[in-house]
Amino acid sequence: MTETGSDVRLRLRVAALTLFDAQGFDQTTATQIAEHAGVNRRTFFRYFADKRDVLFEDEALRDLLLRGMAAAPAALPPIEAIRFAFRSAAPLLEANGSVAGLRRKVIAATPTLRERALGRAAMLADELAARLGDRGVDSHLAALASRVGMAACDLAVSTWSSEATDSFETHLDRSFSDLHDLLGHARRAGS
Amino acid sequence: MTETGSDVRLRLRVAALTLFDAQGFDQTTATQIAEHAGVNRRTFFRYFADKRDVLFEDEALRDLLLRGMAAAPAALPPIEAIRFAFRSAAPLLEANGSVAGLRRKVIAATPTLRERALGRAAMLADELAARLGDRGVDSHLAALASRVGMAACDLAVSTWSSEATDSFETHLDRSFSDLHDLLGHARRAGS
Repeated sequence: MTETGSDVRLRLRVAALTLFDAQGFDQTTATQIAEHAGVNRRTFFRYFADKRDVLFEDEALRDLLLRGMAAAPAALPPIEAIRFAFRSAAPLLEANGSVAGLRRKVIAATPTLRERALGRAAMLADELAARLGDRGVDSHLAALASRVGMAACDLAVSTWSSEATDSFETHLDRSFSDLHDLLGHARRAGS
Repeated sequence: MTETGSDVRLRLRVAALTLFDAQGFDQTTATQIAEHAGVNRRTFFRYFADKRDVLFEDEALRDLLLRGMAAAPAALPPIEAIRFAFRSAAPLLEANGSVAGLRRKVIAATPTLRERALGRAAMLADELAARLGDRGVDSHLAALASRVGMAACDLAVSTWSSEATDSFETHLDRSFSDLHDLLGHARRAGS
């Protein structure tokens, strides 16, 4: 059986995450990752621009989310359009499930990586807010909806990738249900 | 009339923000900031560790928020405890009002600064979530409440600092009212 490109890519990703986790991101070199995956250094660079690139291969997720957003029924309220987009990305997230928890752990352990991940998430939130704007949502409300929706989705990814029980969609539904409880309680207390 | 330390500090901060905005953060040196403020380089370093420090003097805000959180009545629901904390920081925010808009503009224009600001906000959100945990709030709900509350508060700071009309508290109330509308609509659509 011959190995496909995506097999090699996954093997390199697992090797990188394993080493990042065991000895730290800063202490790990591309050469070590390649060796650990049983390929040479040149092969590593055929798949990734650098070692950081292994952690931020999120273009596919971004594309899916924006396409999901475009496919969301016009009648959906802003926050539900965000949930719809994340639900449409569930298959990709599930496919990456085996490495998602380790990836988050490595990012959380390295402040510069955490800042970068937050920067990328903020850019994505801005893009989703702009799409809500295209749907006629007021810009302030769109910014709030995209950030609140992303917070709920991100926590769903977090609990799903650390608990490894139930589907991503179950975690997503739980997170949105918590969001409603959160605001429901506040409303009752405030009124 | 003699100039106090906080006068000099404010003058340096305004000089720094003006130069960052006009010529870019990377292109601005501590020496230029000192010159622009009419003091020498050594004086600059008496007040700030480096030029980036001018933008991230947020310890006072953090202290106020954590103290506000500690003072929030136990009966307040999680999201309202966050709002209570931000409300208690209003005087400090108002005092910095003259430079707040420019600061946000400079940070937004420089990706590395934006990532750093996001990193600091995320750390603060974690701290607020931990305080909610101390109040007996379940950890997942606490994480969600602090991030959603911070998103609403941050947008209030943003609209307040760019529009420069009404008090910060008015913007804060508007942002939380939007938050309720956002979830209220979603709930009706989902039920």
